[in-house]
Formats: sequence, C-alpha cells, structure tokens
Amino acid sequence: MGIIESTLNGISGRDETWRKRARERLDRLIMPHWALGRLMDLAVDLAGIARSMNPPVERKRIFTMAGDHGVAAEGVSKYPPEVTPQMVHGFVSGLAGINALSRLNGVDVTVVDMGVASDLGDLARAGKIVDCKVAMGTGNIAVGPAMTREQAVRAIEAGIGVVEDAADRTDVFGVGDMGIANTSPSAAIAAALTGASPEEVTGRGTGLDDAQLRRKIAVVAKALEVNKPDPGDAVDVLAKVGGFEIGGIAGAVLGAAARRKPLVVDGFIATAGALIAHGLEPRVADYIIASHRSVERGHSIMQERLGREPLLDLGFRLGEGTGAAVAMNLVEAAKRILTEVATFEEAHVATAVM
Amino acid sequence: MGIIESTLNGISGRDETWRKRARERLDRLIMPHWALGRLMDLAVDLAGIARSMNPPVERKRIFTMAGDHGVAAEGVSKYPPEVTPQMVHGFVSGLAGINALSRLNGVDVTVVDMGVASDLGDLARAGKIVDCKVAMGTGNIAVGPAMTREQAVRAIEAGIGVVEDAADRTDVFGVGDMGIANTSPSAAIAAALTGASPEEVTGRGTGLDDAQLRRKIAVVAKALEVNKPDPGDAVDVLAKVGGFEIGGIAGAVLGAAARRKPLVVDGFIATAGALIAHGLEPRVADYIIASHRSVERGHSIMQERLGREPLLDLGFRLGEGTGAAVAMNLVEAAKRILTEVATFEEAHVATAVM
Repeated sequence: MGIIESTLNGISGRDETWRKRARERLDRLIMPHWALGRLMDLAVDLAGIARSMNPPVERKRIFTMAGDHGVAAEGVSKYPPEVTPQMVHGFVSGLAGINALSRLNGVDVTVVDMGVASDLGDLARAGKIVDCKVAMGTGNIAVGPAMTREQAVRAIEAGIGVVEDAADRTDVFGVGDMGIANTSPSAAIAAALTGASPEEVTGRGTGLDDAQLRRKIAVVAKALEVNKPDPGDAVDVLAKVGGFEIGGIAGAVLGAAARRKPLVVDGFIATAGALIAHGLEPRVADYIIASHRSVERGHSIMQERLGREPLLDLGFRLGEGTGAAVAMNLVEAAKRILTEVATFEEAHVATAVM
Repeated sequence: MGIIESTLNGISGRDETWRKRARERLDRLIMPHWALGRLMDLAVDLAGIARSMNPPVERKRIFTMAGDHGVAAEGVSKYPPEVTPQMVHGFVSGLAGINALSRLNGVDVTVVDMGVASDLGDLARAGKIVDCKVAMGTGNIAVGPAMTREQAVRAIEAGIGVVEDAADRTDVFGVGDMGIANTSPSAAIAAALTGASPEEVTGRGTGLDDAQLRRKIAVVAKALEVNKPDPGDAVDVLAKVGGFEIGGIAGAVLGAAARRKPLVVDGFIATAGALIAHGLEPRVADYIIASHRSVERGHSIMQERLGREPLLDLGFRLGEGTGAAVAMNLVEAAKRILTEVATFEEAHVATAVM
C-alpha cells in the first residue's frame, strides 16, 4: 500500500461528541449567546479536531512550499522566474512578509523546496530549507502536462512526509506557497475541480492589467483544453495542470488530517492544494481552517467547494503563508475563549431574564 | 479654559509627510504591489499618527468603561442591570472574554467605573478599577435626559483624564464598554448624529426576538422625541440620550488624539462614544482604528460617518473591548510589515518586468 493510500485510510471526520461538549460550554459563557461569533465556531472546530476541551495550539508551524512553473514562459506573471529562488533566500534570511508575521505570532516557518528551477542545495545542506525537489520546475501547462503522474504522487507524498516529521512537535499547521506564475495552475485546478469557467477563477495575480489578464485567462483555458484533466481524479488534475508546491500542500493537508491536527490554509494557491487533497478525501475539510479571502478572483469559489468560510478579508494577495500567519492569532484566541472564559455559574453572574 | 476645550485645541490631523514616507517604503517591499492590503493601509496610518517610520505598538492598553442605564427599566435587554457590576467583578478576576483575548495579545485592561449603579468602592480602593463614577447610573432616556450637561462634561473629562494618566506608558489605546441596556443609548446617539432612523440603527443587542426588537426601536424613537438632542452639539447628544461609559469613551478618543496615539475602537457602543468625540473634533478620526464590524445593526452606519473601515468581521456582539483586543494583533502586524520586511533593493530581489 502506498503512502497516499495509507494516509487516506487514516483520515476520519471530526468528533461530534467533543464538538457538542465544546458547544455546551460556550453556550454558558458569561456573555450573550454566541457573542464571539466566528471565534466560537472555530473553538468548536478545534475541540472536534483534537478530541479535547483543551485543544493544543501553542506550537505553530507554517510550511512555505516553493516551486517553479513552465507556464511562466507564457507571460502570466509580472515577475521573472528568478524571483522564486530569490524569495526562498529572502525567507531563509527572515526578510519577507511571512517572516515578519510569523515572528509576531510565534509561528515557526519551514521552507520546502518542492520544485524550484535552481540549485538550492547549499541551503538544504545547511539545514535552512527542506529538500523535497521533485524536478527543476514543471512543464508549461499551456502546451502539455505540468508533470508525470509519478511526480504528482511524489509531490503529495513529500507533503505528507514533512507534516509527519513535524507532527510530534506541532499543534497547528499552516501552509503557504512561493512560485512565480503559480496562480495560473491554481486557477486551472479550481476550474477543473469546481466546474467554474477560466474567467471565473483567473485573477490578476501579481497585478496584471486588463490585456494581461485576458491573455492569462486564455492560457488557463488552453491548459485545460490541451491536458483534459479528469475532475474525478485529483492526482490527474495535479499532474496535468498543477505544480510541485501545490502537490506538497495537498500532501500536507492529508498528513495533518491523518494526524488529527488543524491546518490553516493560506490564499489562492494553498487553497488549490487543499482542493486536490479534498478531491482525494473530502473529510480533510474538517481539519482545514480557511485563513482569509484573497483578492484573487475565484478564491471564494474554491472555499465554498471546501465548505470553509474564511476568517479574514484584509485584501491580501501575497501567498507565502502570510494569511495563515495572521490567522494563527485567531486560532489561539478561539482556544482561549474555550478554556479561559468563565461560565455564568462559575462566575456567579445572573443569566438572561427575558 | 476647560479640559475639553484645551484637549480639542491640542488635536491636529495626521502627518502627510510621514504617511508618504511609509507609503514609499511599502511600495518597494519584496512582494507584489500592496499585496498585504489593509495591513499596509494601517501601517501608513500608524506612521502618520506617530510621525515615525518605527511607530511604537508594544505597550497596549484597553479601557473597559462601565456604566448603568435607566432605560433598562424599559425591557430593552435580556439581562438584568445587576449583570453590570457582576461583569466588573468578572473583569477584575480575569474571567471574561476581554481578559482571555487581552492576555493572548499582551494587552493591559483597565476597568473604569464611569457610572455603575452599585457601590464598587472596594474594588476602587484596592486599585483594581479606576473610580470615575459620575452617578449611580443614568436617567431613563425614554422619559427624560440621561444626565445633566455638567455630568456629560465630567464624563468626557474623566475619559480624557484616564488616557492622559496612562499616555506615557501606552503606545496603543483601546476602548470597550460594559453596561446593561447600553445598545439603546448608542442607537439613539447614532440616529441623532448620523440622521439615520431608529429602525436603521437599533439592533438585537443581547439577543432580542422580533417583538422585543420592535419595542426597543420604539424606546429609541421615544428617547429622541422626548429629549430632542441637538445634532450640532455632541455634548448635548451625550447628555440627552447617552451614557456615562459612552462619555468616558468619547473622552478617551479625544485624549488619545491629543496625545497623538492610535486608539482601537471596539464595537457598537464604543463607536457611539467615538461618534460623540468626532462631533466635537472630526480630526479624531485620523487616530481611530476601527477594530471590527459588529453584528449590531447600525454599526456600519456609524463607521461610515467616521470614515473608518473595520478590520475584522467575525460576528462579534459582545463589547468589553473584545474586538479591540483581537485587532491589536493586526496593529502589531502592520507595524512589523513596515519595519521588518525588506525592499527589493535591500534583499536583491528582481522587480517586475511587465
């Protein structure tokens, strides 16, 4: 039995008993009923995931998965592909958005080379990144498949592996991405798996103008036409129109669910990875926390398919895991509401009279 | 010259030079343009408030202002008035929502008795709360004014005073409220100062059903009819249909602006207090950070009047300062984006080619 299959076999849904227990306590906290809204919903989720009224959230880790994309040759990004390895160096040096936000919220960041088209061996040997490189970037999806099926399986397995390696020292996982041009494969995945049109799921990415956006939509449409990904086979979708970092993210989602750990999904690309995982096992949705709604068109279509409403809407469109890093504070807040606020009985406060 | 007048004289608007400097740096960070959206807007605000590219945000303090309301006799809240002092005891014991969320984000909470209709002298003498009690609760606004004009002035002055006392050891202020029935005076203030109808600004508060809501709307309408607050005189509005804690919040907003400190406004009641301050000096808006959009109907009408878009929308309707406590993390995040993320030049990352 392969790693993916055994991981899928290990995924069960959330625990309704613990969710009910959490709801019963939250119903009695010294405040009007459910007055902390979405954070109370999240507290119920955390209890159901951890099977505990004291769900652990202290040790937080975001995997920032990096990969390059052959489709960059089609002019779908404002930035040149060399920015992918440059940003990996930026992450390692602590200079990027994800570093600043993760430091604030006490989140460890692990950068994973899933398929950057540069030699990052020095960083890997120095222990500064995790080397899971499947290949030196994907093929151009506008003319053929992104990768072989075997490579897609390897990418997912690598994502499962990095989560598994860290699971004993992590309470809450997060996933983010880095990869110039990767909103295009993400849009193609969104279209393939939700049935939405390329227009509905293709956005401006790094900041395309109208003409550049029209060209990008045409590229996504062509990728779907040329490769004909099978919507009933998420591995095929990943192989045909995906990316190595997206496969790694999909694996991380599966791994976290199998280990019954909550996983905070970042933006558009990370959600495409989550959608691949969801295609393999819909119950992963019970372990997913949607951090934010991206500016990128089509993000909400994917989140609706996952059945996960995002916590934040701050106009982010960066990736890296930045939305997940910010949302980690809300995860901790939710846990504290469950564990640190007294009930009416405990605090001797009068209850409603009307 | 009175305290209010001298405070108003000390308020100048934000500094456009520092805002421009912040914007110029943020424009060059290693990410697509303005890719952290609202947090970058907030970083510009912080720089313009502090007149600094390194705006201090470490020392955070929320004033939870408490007061009772004669209008509770009209059956506008599901909870009895004795809950106000009980919750003050809860805050002091660290048992409430505001305590849990403030602990998480490193926020000091100062509880201020602005007009609770109980003797809280023991807590004040023990230094656990600040005693600014103007009176033992307001009058019933459905039959007459909430307070005298002199009491309204004293409430505002007290709010200015608590901020002034803490200003040298506080970088970011926050304001929240506690007071059974206080969504009714807040709705009346909103209607008086924005011109909205009682229906548009009166919500379900602690969780009223349809019939109870209709009754509450009638009470708010009657309060406006009986008292005829003068929309051109914010002190008159506070005196006629306000509350002591709302006056304290208004004063805190003025005091923070005069000291050029950012102030995070919590929910519906705190925003009514901010609206009173804004009626006295519109430039206070430059120092206000709107933490969240409450479930309470009419909150967004007040935020629009202030010209401040809320950061969060999490279905909160609690008060106490809880939304402000959560938003403090975003304030810190904004500052870190400004100070900890490298520019393209600093990090040697290639810039856009399209």
